[in-house]
Amino acid sequence: MSPKVTEEHKEQRRLEILKAAEEVFKRKGYEPTSMQDIIEEARMSRGGVYLYFSGKEDVFRALLDQLDAGQGLWYGELLAQTKTAWEAVERFLAVLEEQVQTVADSLTPVVYEYVSSSWRDPSRRAYFTRRYELAIAQATAFLQACVERGDFRPEIPLESVARFVISFFDGLHMDVLLLGADKVDVKDQIDSLRRYLRAVLQSV
Amino acid sequence: MSPKVTEEHKEQRRLEILKAAEEVFKRKGYEPTSMQDIIEEARMSRGGVYLYFSGKEDVFRALLDQLDAGQGLWYGELLAQTKTAWEAVERFLAVLEEQVQTVADSLTPVVYEYVSSSWRDPSRRAYFTRRYELAIAQATAFLQACVERGDFRPEIPLESVARFVISFFDGLHMDVLLLGADKVDVKDQIDSLRRYLRAVLQSV
Repeated sequence: MSPKVTEEHKEQRRLEILKAAEEVFKRKGYEPTSMQDIIEEARMSRGGVYLYFSGKEDVFRALLDQLDAGQGLWYGELLAQTKTAWEAVERFLAVLEEQVQTVADSLTPVVYEYVSSSWRDPSRRAYFTRRYELAIAQATAFLQACVERGDFRPEIPLESVARFVISFFDGLHMDVLLLGADKVDVKDQIDSLRRYLRAVLQSV
Repeated sequence: MSPKVTEEHKEQRRLEILKAAEEVFKRKGYEPTSMQDIIEEARMSRGGVYLYFSGKEDVFRALLDQLDAGQGLWYGELLAQTKTAWEAVERFLAVLEEQVQTVADSLTPVVYEYVSSSWRDPSRRAYFTRRYELAIAQATAFLQACVERGDFRPEIPLESVARFVISFFDGLHMDVLLLGADKVDVKDQIDSLRRYLRAVLQSV
C-alpha cells in the first residue's frame, strides 16, 4: 500500500469517527457522552479511535473545526452563485433562515451546553476566542468581496457588521432552541437583520 | 401583631431568601446549588425556607420573576427621565451597554446554564415562553410610549423591533460571557444596534 493511500485511508477513518461522534453528541448531549459511546457508535476498536483523538473534548473540537471550515467554503459558494453584492447577502440570509429553523436537529444545542459550562475554563475560552476570530475573519472577507462588486458603500467597518451579525445569530439560535421557531418569528427577525444590513452597507 | 404587619414581615423574609439564593447561585452555578446551600446562606431554618419555596427551581424562577418585574419599572423610569423618544432610546442603549460589560457578575451566566439544559423540558420551555412574551410586551410598550412622543415613524411593527433587540442581547450576553467584553467590542455592537433602531424607527 502506497503512503498516499494510507493517508487517504486515515482521513477516511477520522471522518467516520467524527460522523459517529456527531450522532452520539446530538442524541445524548455533551456531558453524558463518553469516549466509549463514540467508540461503540463508530464500530471501531478503542485503540483505533484513540489513534486519532485523545478524548471526548478533542473529538468535539474537531467536529466544530470541521463546521468552521465548511463555513468558509460556503461563503465562497455564495459568491460564486451570485452576481451583485446584495444578491449574495440575500442568499446568505435565505440559507441562514433555513438553518435557524432546523437548529434543534444540529450540533448547536450541544455547543451551547458546552459553552454554558465554559465561562470559567481558560482553555475553553481560548478555544472559543480562536473560533470567534475565525468566524469574524470569514464573514468580514465575505463582506469585503461583496464591497468589491461595487454596489455597497459601507458606513461602518465591515468587521463591525460581521460582529453584530454573529452575536445576533448566537442569540437567535438560542431563543429558537428554547422557544421554537414560530414563537421567535424567525422570518420577521431575518427581515430586521436585512434592514440593518441595508442601512449600514448602503446598498446602492 | 396585625395581619398587615405579618404580610410585610413575610414579604421581607421572602426577599431575604431570594437575596441569599442569588448569592449562592452566582457563586456555585445552578446545578451544584442545593436547597441546603440556600437555607445556610439565608441563615434560616429549613421549615422557614420551605414555607416560601417548594424547592431550588421554585426559588430560581422567583428570582427571574423579580428581575422581570424590575425591567418593567426600568422602562417607566427611562420614560420619566427623558423628553424625546430618541433620548429615551439613547438612555436605554447606555444602560444596556453598562449591563453587558458587567454581565459576568450578574445572574445571567446561571440563567444560560439553566437554559442550556432546558431544551427538552416542556415545563421549562413553557416558563421561558411566558418570560419571553413578557419581555416582548414590556419592550413593545416602551417603544409604543416613545412613538406617542411623536418623533418616530416606525416602518415595521414595534413588536418586531422588540423581538430583534431581545435576540441580539441574548447573543451579545452569551458572547461577552464566553469571550470577554473587549474581544466582543460591546461599544461597537451597541452602535450597530443604534443604527438598526434609527433605520427601522425612522427617528425624525
